[in-house]
Amino acid sequence: MPAKEVSFQVEQFKQHPAHTLAYRESAGISVPVTQIHLADSPNGKPNEPLSVYRTSGPGSEPTQGLPPFRERWVRERGDVETYAGRERNLHDDGRSAVRRGTASAEWAGRSAPPLRAVGGARVTQMHYARAGVITPEMRYVALREECDVELVRSELAAGRAIIPANINHPESEPMIIGKAFLVKINANIGNSAVTSSIAEEVSKLQWAAKWGADTVMDLSTGEDIHTTREWIIRNSPVPIGTVPIYQALEKVNGEANKLTWEIFRDTVIEQCEQGVDYMTIHAGVLLRYIPLTANRVTGMVSRGGSIMAGWCLAHHQENFLYTHFDELCEIFAQYDVAFSLGDGLRPGSIADANDAAQFAELDTLAELTKRAWQYDVQVMVEGPGHIPFHLVRENVERQQELCDGAPFYTLGPLVTDIAPGYDHITSAIGATEIARYGTAMLCYVTPKEHLGLPNRDDVKTGVITYKIAAHAADLAKGHPGATARDDALSKARFEFRWNDQFALSLDPVTAQEFHDVTLPAEPAKTAHFCSMCGPKFCSMRISQDIRDEYGSAEAQAALAGMAQKSIQFLESGGTVYLGDEIPVGTPAE
Amino acid sequence: MPAKEVSFQVEQFKQHPAHTLAYRESAGISVPVTQIHLADSPNGKPNEPLSVYRTSGPGSEPTQGLPPFRERWVRERGDVETYAGRERNLHDDGRSAVRRGTASAEWAGRSAPPLRAVGGARVTQMHYARAGVITPEMRYVALREECDVELVRSELAAGRAIIPANINHPESEPMIIGKAFLVKINANIGNSAVTSSIAEEVSKLQWAAKWGADTVMDLSTGEDIHTTREWIIRNSPVPIGTVPIYQALEKVNGEANKLTWEIFRDTVIEQCEQGVDYMTIHAGVLLRYIPLTANRVTGMVSRGGSIMAGWCLAHHQENFLYTHFDELCEIFAQYDVAFSLGDGLRPGSIADANDAAQFAELDTLAELTKRAWQYDVQVMVEGPGHIPFHLVRENVERQQELCDGAPFYTLGPLVTDIAPGYDHITSAIGATEIARYGTAMLCYVTPKEHLGLPNRDDVKTGVITYKIAAHAADLAKGHPGATARDDALSKARFEFRWNDQFALSLDPVTAQEFHDVTLPAEPAKTAHFCSMCGPKFCSMRISQDIRDEYGSAEAQAALAGMAQKSIQFLESGGTVYLGDEIPVGTPAE
Repeated sequence: MPAKEVSFQVEQFKQHPAHTLAYRESAGISVPVTQIHLADSPNGKPNEPLSVYRTSGPGSEPTQGLPPFRERWVRERGDVETYAGRERNLHDDGRSAVRRGTASAEWAGRSAPPLRAVGGARVTQMHYARAGVITPEMRYVALREECDVELVRSELAAGRAIIPANINHPESEPMIIGKAFLVKINANIGNSAVTSSIAEEVSKLQWAAKWGADTVMDLSTGEDIHTTREWIIRNSPVPIGTVPIYQALEKVNGEANKLTWEIFRDTVIEQCEQGVDYMTIHAGVLLRYIPLTANRVTGMVSRGGSIMAGWCLAHHQENFLYTHFDELCEIFAQYDVAFSLGDGLRPGSIADANDAAQFAELDTLAELTKRAWQYDVQVMVEGPGHIPFHLVRENVERQQELCDGAPFYTLGPLVTDIAPGYDHITSAIGATEIARYGTAMLCYVTPKEHLGLPNRDDVKTGVITYKIAAHAADLAKGHPGATARDDALSKARFEFRWNDQFALSLDPVTAQEFHDVTLPAEPAKTAHFCSMCGPKFCSMRISQDIRDEYGSAEAQAALAGMAQKSIQFLESGGTVYLGDEIPVGTPAE
Repeated sequence: MPAKEVSFQVEQFKQHPAHTLAYRESAGISVPVTQIHLADSPNGKPNEPLSVYRTSGPGSEPTQGLPPFRERWVRERGDVETYAGRERNLHDDGRSAVRRGTASAEWAGRSAPPLRAVGGARVTQMHYARAGVITPEMRYVALREECDVELVRSELAAGRAIIPANINHPESEPMIIGKAFLVKINANIGNSAVTSSIAEEVSKLQWAAKWGADTVMDLSTGEDIHTTREWIIRNSPVPIGTVPIYQALEKVNGEANKLTWEIFRDTVIEQCEQGVDYMTIHAGVLLRYIPLTANRVTGMVSRGGSIMAGWCLAHHQENFLYTHFDELCEIFAQYDVAFSLGDGLRPGSIADANDAAQFAELDTLAELTKRAWQYDVQVMVEGPGHIPFHLVRENVERQQELCDGAPFYTLGPLVTDIAPGYDHITSAIGATEIARYGTAMLCYVTPKEHLGLPNRDDVKTGVITYKIAAHAADLAKGHPGATARDDALSKARFEFRWNDQFALSLDPVTAQEFHDVTLPAEPAKTAHFCSMCGPKFCSMRISQDIRDEYGSAEAQAALAGMAQKSIQFLESGGTVYLGDEIPVGTPAE
């Protein structure tokens, strides 16, 4: 359907001058899309603008936040109430939460009391879907994915897809994670050691969303976690995920053995009230599985997993996230927070892939998935890690079978350990394979993985690399309409429409920059040659000559007849002669 | 077997200070390897140095060239003779071949007359293999690949592997391309527009070989092709490939319709005498296939393919490379030049993948493969291109079947068209998939693909990215010993031996650089933490605690008993209880 174009609010969200923000609208729902405007073909025929999935939203002024457009939908269902909320606690921001004073005063946006389900109501999208209710969130997603809303509802009801949409994050644009839909990607960000403004902290989120992150995980540790997260959520058009054990650990001064269920529970409620959309919970790291990692090459590499293992070992008790899992379900159901069941025992090396520890935990994650579903709580399941290419497929197929199709959300996996500095690439290879067979969301890996903390360029490289993996998997799955952008770019390439090639690229800035290094002059953007062959001889030009000679309907009809004849030959079996001299199949010796 | 260590001749070939050049020796054959020296583990146990495959040879002084160590092997077979060689022609170097005068005077190395087979002898490795002769080249390769020499001989005899080793390139270290062996990669280089010295031109070759290129294709066009190629071959420890039609086109002033078989043949002989090891020949672009490309989205994208198509169309005659193919075989057999049968009709976009034109040409390449084998000439077959991920496998399986297992040599393939600037990544994804199923050599793609000419950084990025793809495929194929480097690096990672991690990386320079951005201080290289978790809490340290507690033989024996019990449960079928509360398989609704 046609997208209604509007002017750009925030220029910084523009990837290329030929991109505009437009809205796809239907029955009162408006979904922002990026419209890519194209030049005419050399033969004068116009090229329709291409509308592509947009994650960066309409753009926001960081100190104001985004409009809470989804609040009305939430309230109209009549099953929520505002309440005073948990009392703010000084150590929510860590041990010396005073640095943010100046920046906090900048905040000029909404500071509403939190919403919660009335009584024992379950306000999750899964609950509505199971009851046969089509929510505006579902209609939004259907418009965004260009699919039937009943597909959205039925996949949600079956647990095969989730819409992470905390009722306290009304700024977020509903999106769906499930194998029947476009493959999604997540980018991780963390707080800065020294930050002087809200804009600076929010810019990391906006940067990731600008280049295509479908969700963002805030993995901040240390100081000012609460305040930073508040700014991020208020400005985020994409769902925000967290690993609440990180903040809980801060509250006990970094000593894992001092953690308690009560401190953890309090942290979870704090984050539910802020609007976190999904939380990684390492409830599958059971006491009895920990010894299975003892003789691994790389032991345990999940930070959250080892925090819980450290606690279990210190107390010789079962993981409190497991023993209190039902309570967590009850809490999540009141805010519509989705579980991201963490794989604390994921392998950290090729040697440890698909081992007993990893698969033991997966069995427990499957159990927990079904337990959460009893509360209508949405669930996705996290996956590895480091897996050699031929063992990747088994991971997703096993997870899908054990977890009855609950969305799989994987980190990579990396298909070799020997390329630190290039692990965005080693992991994108595994990510494409695992997504092809049904993984619904891919957590990005940056070039700094295993080595250090990613900077702005690393985040962008990670996001673009994962957009490649996700899109390659969409193509491989034959997702409806997935080839449109490839075809438009390839047509532009064939017609030497250089600016259109840049505009259609996942990263127009880099594409143009690389082009301009070799052929910087402006006329080269429309010149009918490129730097590979130069102006004298051009492959593409010869192709054009061929098209002019043989591309007509009559010529093609004649050729089709010839091709048919050739197929008959091939199908007849026996000895087939291709060319005049040598029968195929004749032994060379 | 132990590798004998020697001092480094050329410091610039060192990737890391912990790397040394060593030789693996057996029965008079010496194969250079890179030895990576490692620190002791924290528990004091030493870590054996790891010997890894080395492509950069012993290093050479560009104006001197490498020693022609293989000449003795060639001469001892008694089937070759020196001869005057083709007369040097002014236009061998293009239209104004005077620029190189100064640089040419620098040359201080060997200028021997060429070798050729005596009489009608066939001096190819395939010929010897079929006759049951084990050559020193085969023994060299077996030592290098750490496999049985009979595997080398039998794969060569069957045409399933090649050793590209022109008798006039005695400086080259024999290597094998075939699916039973390590997956290889090729890097393309081209001449510079303005170059003032031999060293500068040779440095591109040395740079590619330093980072791991197994072969290098010299795709130079324009001026000084002959002279540049001479310098490259004399300094190259790896086989050199070319596309002779490029030089032939230069000789007719860039006008494809003026090409003749005679000019092409003369160019091929010129290159045979110089020592080119394999040549791309676009003999499968038949006149009748050309119209099949007319309605493609991107027509013909192979430069060599379109040159031949341009010629065919101009003359309305069959491709002279096809009609004179037997003559080419006779020439190649006299020098042991291998065919790389070019895929001139490869698809240039996702839309054109696996189409009638592509597969028609493949049928002809299969025919030509078997024709070349009748002359004992070694053959590999080139492959695409742009292919969506799910169609990649069909390409290699079809090629292997039609071509009776002749080595497949593919460019990528790229699994999407929408990421110019990142096509090293889009293509490495496809390359891993196609190599997993049997492609023997991968032609690299740099980040500048489709946009401009690669610089030094791009070449390195392309090579490292393709080493990742090749190695990931080796792991996936279960190639013997392939996990050794992964395991050594992961062990170093687990033990916080940072310098060893760098040394074991495919790119130690980048790995260390990325690490040092976040934790630059020298003590951090041995510190028992990294920048991800920081000094207070460390996943790896908890793992070490677990190992200390449960890693003993007794503890593991007890655990094995438990695991066995668990497997029995699982195998018994029926209802399996994991955890205490929820039977797996209970519907959540």
